[in-house]
Amino acid sequence: MAAIEHFWAVVPAGGAGTRLWPLSRAASPKFLLDLTGSGRSLLQETVTRVTGLAADRVLVVTGAAHRDRVAAQLDHLPGDRVIAEPSPRDSMAAIGYAAALLEREDPDAVMASFAADHVIGDLDRFEEAVALAVQVARDDWLVTIGIRPSGPSTAFGYLRRGAPVPGYVGAFVVEEFVEKPSEEVARGYVAAGTYRWNAGMFVCRPGVLLDLLGARHPGFAASLRDLAASPHRLAEVWPTLPKIAIDHAVAEPAAAAGRVATVPGEFPWDDIGDFHSLAEVLGGAAGDLQVLGDPDLVRAESASGLVVPAGGRMVAVIGLDDVVVVDTADAVLVTTRARAQEVKAVVDGLRDSGRTDLT
Amino acid sequence: MAAIEHFWAVVPAGGAGTRLWPLSRAASPKFLLDLTGSGRSLLQETVTRVTGLAADRVLVVTGAAHRDRVAAQLDHLPGDRVIAEPSPRDSMAAIGYAAALLEREDPDAVMASFAADHVIGDLDRFEEAVALAVQVARDDWLVTIGIRPSGPSTAFGYLRRGAPVPGYVGAFVVEEFVEKPSEEVARGYVAAGTYRWNAGMFVCRPGVLLDLLGARHPGFAASLRDLAASPHRLAEVWPTLPKIAIDHAVAEPAAAAGRVATVPGEFPWDDIGDFHSLAEVLGGAAGDLQVLGDPDLVRAESASGLVVPAGGRMVAVIGLDDVVVVDTADAVLVTTRARAQEVKAVVDGLRDSGRTDLT
Repeated sequence: MAAIEHFWAVVPAGGAGTRLWPLSRAASPKFLLDLTGSGRSLLQETVTRVTGLAADRVLVVTGAAHRDRVAAQLDHLPGDRVIAEPSPRDSMAAIGYAAALLEREDPDAVMASFAADHVIGDLDRFEEAVALAVQVARDDWLVTIGIRPSGPSTAFGYLRRGAPVPGYVGAFVVEEFVEKPSEEVARGYVAAGTYRWNAGMFVCRPGVLLDLLGARHPGFAASLRDLAASPHRLAEVWPTLPKIAIDHAVAEPAAAAGRVATVPGEFPWDDIGDFHSLAEVLGGAAGDLQVLGDPDLVRAESASGLVVPAGGRMVAVIGLDDVVVVDTADAVLVTTRARAQEVKAVVDGLRDSGRTDLT
Repeated sequence: MAAIEHFWAVVPAGGAGTRLWPLSRAASPKFLLDLTGSGRSLLQETVTRVTGLAADRVLVVTGAAHRDRVAAQLDHLPGDRVIAEPSPRDSMAAIGYAAALLEREDPDAVMASFAADHVIGDLDRFEEAVALAVQVARDDWLVTIGIRPSGPSTAFGYLRRGAPVPGYVGAFVVEEFVEKPSEEVARGYVAAGTYRWNAGMFVCRPGVLLDLLGARHPGFAASLRDLAASPHRLAEVWPTLPKIAIDHAVAEPAAAAGRVATVPGEFPWDDIGDFHSLAEVLGGAAGDLQVLGDPDLVRAESASGLVVPAGGRMVAVIGLDDVVVVDTADAVLVTTRARAQEVKAVVDGLRDSGRTDLT
C-alpha cells in the first residue's frame, strides 16, 4: 500500500513489561527486546510496520532513561523523532504532547498511536484498517481500531460498537469502552459479535484529540499546546501534567459524547502481557514446547510450554507440561503458563527487599 | 562408642551420580559434593562417621582422576590411605584389593565397606550395628547390615533373612539377595517383615572375602593377593581384573552357600540416587519446598519440591508442586520429583551429542 500523505505514526514506548521478568527489566524494558525471534525488537518491528503508510513520519515518545537505546535501534529516523519524557506521566501526556507537536508541524496531519510493545500478524490487513481509520479520522472522529477477539480474553479491554458511521463501509460508532471482563462476561461479548478488543490504536487529527481533551481537562490541553510552542520548557512543565491514561482522559468521555468511531482490525494482535501470551504468539498450542532463542541450549523430555535460554546455559526440562523456564545471566524463572501472571508478585517482592539490581 | 581394635573401614568412592546432574559431573562426582547442607562432602561425612569405631584405619579406593581431590578432602588421613584405581573395575576389584592389602597388613583385621556417597542418620545405631557385625564377622561370616525399610522402595535391592545365627542376638542367616523389586513385590517384602534393604555394607575378615571370591573366581582372588604383595604392578595388573560387582561375585553365591549373615540396621539410610531421594533426605515431605544452598537466592510462590541455587543466580519458582530446579554455572535442570530418575537420559543425550563439557 502506498504511503498516506500527512499520516503520522506516534509510538509510545513505555512500560517495563514486569510480567516478562527476568527477560524484561526496568533498564531493559519489553519494547527493546526481541520477543519473536525475528532478530529485531518489538519497537523496531512496530516502527517497520508503519513505514509503508507513514514513511519516516514517526514520532517515538519514551522515557529519558531509554532515549539513547531507542535512538540507536531506530537510527534510520531523523534525530528529532525520538522524544524523551523527563518522567513517566502515563499515556495521555505522551500521546497528547506528540499531538501538540504535530498540530503545529502539519495542520493536515492525521496521527495514529501504536504501542511499541505489541505484536501484529498480518501487515496487509493492518494497513487496510489504518487506511480506513485515517479516512474516517479526517472527518474529525476519534477512531480506534477494534480487534476481532480470537477468544474470550480477560486480559484486554473491549469496546461495543453501535450504528454504522454514515459514508464509511466498515466504520461504526463506539457506544462504550469496557474494562477487562470476567471470563463469563468475555464469553458473552464474543458471542454477541458487537464487541472488539481495544488495542489502544487511536487514529485522529491532532487538534481533535487536544480539543476532546480540552473539553474535560482544559488546563491539560493548554499545557500541551504551550509546551509544543516552547519545547525548551519540557523539563519544567512535564512534571506538572496529570498522570492519566488516554482511555480515561479522552476515549471514554468522547465515546459517551458520540465522538468515537471504530474500524475493524482483522489481523492477529497481542500485547504479550506475560509468558503465556508470549508462548501463544510464538505459535505454541498446548503440548508444544516453544524455544525463544538457541534451540541447541534446550534439552527436553516429555515437556511442553516455553523455554527461553537467554543466559547461554544449557536448560534441561523433564516431565513438565505447559512449563515456563526463563534463564538469564543473573536470574532464573520457573513457572507455568497458567501462573504466568504472578511473575509480577516476584518482581515486586525483589524490589521490596532491595534487590533492585535484579528488577 | 570406643574404637574397635583391628577394625578397618573400606570406602569405595566411585560412581558419578549421573541422576544428580547438573550438580554432579564426571569430574565432580556425587561423593565430593555437599548434598546435605552440612558444609562437608558425602565422602567427608562417610569417613567421619566411621572414625569412632575405626579411628584412622580407613582405606579409600577411588578413581585416579579423583585421587587428589579425595586426598585434599581427607587431609587428616595418612597419605597411603587413598588408593587410586587406574581405571574403573567395579566394586569387587576395589573392595577386593583393599581386602588383599589389609590381609597382609593386619592378620586380625575385620573390614567393613561403606560407599562414599550414602547418607546415614543416627550415629549411635549405626555404630551398634557395625559393632555387632564385627563380632559375627570374626566367626568367618560375611556379614551385611540389613537396613529396615522405611517404605516399599523400588530403588534398592533387598535381602531375605532366615534362621538366627547361634550365639549372636539379632544376627540372622541371609537366605538370599533379591534385585530391585516392582512396587507390588516391594509391598509384599515390607509386609512380610523378613526383608531388609541391602546397602552394600559388607563386614568380614579380609581373608574370608578373598576365599569366598576364590571359590568361584580363583584367578581373580589370586591376582588381588599378588597385587597386594607387589603394589608397583597396579597399572599393569588392574586392567586385567574382571569388572563385576561384589554382590554378584561374592555375596549372592556366598548366601546360597549359607555363609552370609545379617545384623539389623535401625538407622535412617539413603543412597541419594536422584533428586527425589535428595529432597527426602533433606526432610522434604510433599508440599514442602526444600532449598539446598543459600535460601536468599530462592523466591517461591505456591511452590513445593527442591531448589538448588548452586549457580549464584536468583531462582524464582511460581505455582509448581514437587518441582526440582537445579541451577549451576553452565546448566539448569527443571523437572519433578516423580521424574527425577529420567535425568540420566538427558545426561546420556548430552554425552552422545558431544557436550561432554557439560557432563
